[in-house]
Amino acid sequence: MGRMGKQTFVLDSPPAIVSSAAVAGKKEGDGPLGPSFDIVCEDSFFGEETWEKAESSMLSRTLSLAVGKAGLDFSDLGCVFSGDLLNQCVGSSFGLRGTDVPVFGLYGACSTMAEGLALAAMTVSAGYAETAAAVTSSHFCSAERQYRTPLEYGGQRTPTAQWTVTGAGCAVLAASGAGPLITHVTPGRIVDLGVKDANNMGAAMAPAAYDTLRAHFADTGRAPDFYDLILTGDLGFIGSEILRGFFERDGVSLENHNDCGMMIFDRVGQDVHGGGSGCGCSASVLCGEILGALRAGRWKNVLFAATGALLSPTTSMQGESIPGICCAVALTSGETR
Amino acid sequence: MGRMGKQTFVLDSPPAIVSSAAVAGKKEGDGPLGPSFDIVCEDSFFGEETWEKAESSMLSRTLSLAVGKAGLDFSDLGCVFSGDLLNQCVGSSFGLRGTDVPVFGLYGACSTMAEGLALAAMTVSAGYAETAAAVTSSHFCSAERQYRTPLEYGGQRTPTAQWTVTGAGCAVLAASGAGPLITHVTPGRIVDLGVKDANNMGAAMAPAAYDTLRAHFADTGRAPDFYDLILTGDLGFIGSEILRGFFERDGVSLENHNDCGMMIFDRVGQDVHGGGSGCGCSASVLCGEILGALRAGRWKNVLFAATGALLSPTTSMQGESIPGICCAVALTSGETR
Repeated sequence: MGRMGKQTFVLDSPPAIVSSAAVAGKKEGDGPLGPSFDIVCEDSFFGEETWEKAESSMLSRTLSLAVGKAGLDFSDLGCVFSGDLLNQCVGSSFGLRGTDVPVFGLYGACSTMAEGLALAAMTVSAGYAETAAAVTSSHFCSAERQYRTPLEYGGQRTPTAQWTVTGAGCAVLAASGAGPLITHVTPGRIVDLGVKDANNMGAAMAPAAYDTLRAHFADTGRAPDFYDLILTGDLGFIGSEILRGFFERDGVSLENHNDCGMMIFDRVGQDVHGGGSGCGCSASVLCGEILGALRAGRWKNVLFAATGALLSPTTSMQGESIPGICCAVALTSGETR
Repeated sequence: MGRMGKQTFVLDSPPAIVSSAAVAGKKEGDGPLGPSFDIVCEDSFFGEETWEKAESSMLSRTLSLAVGKAGLDFSDLGCVFSGDLLNQCVGSSFGLRGTDVPVFGLYGACSTMAEGLALAAMTVSAGYAETAAAVTSSHFCSAERQYRTPLEYGGQRTPTAQWTVTGAGCAVLAASGAGPLITHVTPGRIVDLGVKDANNMGAAMAPAAYDTLRAHFADTGRAPDFYDLILTGDLGFIGSEILRGFFERDGVSLENHNDCGMMIFDRVGQDVHGGGSGCGCSASVLCGEILGALRAGRWKNVLFAATGALLSPTTSMQGESIPGICCAVALTSGETR
């Protein structure tokens, strides 16, 4: 346990991700990663009366599924780290209401999956709990009406706009077990280069991704090519290009980079403009496709760096720019000793 | 390091709160705890153009003040745990934007100060960072217009309504040093007994306080009278009476209980109905009056149990009840070995 370099925490006893679950909506299920989701729900209401309740239901089902896959009950979980995009994080609070598990509520915008994984890993590695879970969600319909306009309004989307993913992901961590291990955590600083266009989140978040990734490489002494995959959260097509540009300026080529927002939809066929976004984007991609590939041995080392745009509609209306944040978590295949 | 009982984490190397700062607005400065605040700002805008920016400025100043008192710079801080009540926690995000410190964003509603202290203590005690800070804020004017009605509307407040405190508190923790120590953390479960009145937060949160306190006593084997003070966050007058009633039913008298929401205003003279509330209520009371009393040796053992109501205006409009949460942190005077 300890500090490495300026900003990175090393987990001397790397906890194992013993199970994970990913749940998604119909549009996400129709995309290239469709087969990797545990459940694809055709009904955008998930059987509930409102989209907010639908999001809570989706988050709750994802947690149940992951806990069940690990062969655990809720009463076995030491604690849960959870957050989402809805005002006052009600997706999480109402989704976790029936579980009786101690909760640490988070707000990291779309970086929440990495933040939750980081804190869950730190908690388990230090021995505070034998097991802990990280879970998060987003829902296109609840996000649109909260951040932008009522869906019925049918507003035109700009070419840089990203599509909020309807999806949730959950990872259950334990002190010992088979499964990908979490070895390092690099929490992010808030970075704001002055981007004010709330329809171009990728551009607003790319500087934060660059800042955290650079810190991670400097702290650990690892070059980018140490990783089979450097996976950002939801920079989308535009933000990813900006990120690779920053590194090219340093003479570094991020060839092994991909982005959850680019992976989850078919750019040509699904009309999503800038790509996918939302807490549920990186959560469902990580907890389905990526952890699956690590378990199967297709990848050995993955750096998961989820990004968040820390704005609100109020700050944008008050003329503010958009601060970004990025939290990075280093994953390796294998099991605990 | 480890687990004690079902829900409590023990910090074998208890970190020290090496400094703290509390900043408040004019009404809070006029109350019984006025002398305990580092700064009382007469201007509700804190020199800014909007109340949201005022809240960020207040939070930022409080962090600077606490870090300075510890003889540190921002670059010495391992990380900051921060959150607030504003949509998307923009009080924190914009307040921390200029600091260059790694951030873990939280949402625990009015329990945020205890949640932040808990995670900062866990982080420092485990050796991930030498120092960490917990900071939070609330502002009467930004909260009223977000959760209730525009201030200009002049709505009548019900007798059970609480008054959101304009205030912020910050504690800086270090692995060694003089100052009160954090010895135990009991994170809370989400408890919802069906209260639907958004103007009676005390009643909604009291069951969560009871649940966490009972778990803490059971896990640690400590009786309530082990503590010189059991300090709940912002149950106010009504919620505190309900909490004491729950314990009386168990044959336990909580004689050493007080509540930040009852302490911060003069019930008779300041027309606050149910008492104070908001993240800044428990944060400014703890970081001013209470930590001062621990440092001065007036108290030896204090259990700080901040409470949060996990609702949003949307959930209330959709007919939902109000889930509550309570996180408890055990403090003792003295210094690290």
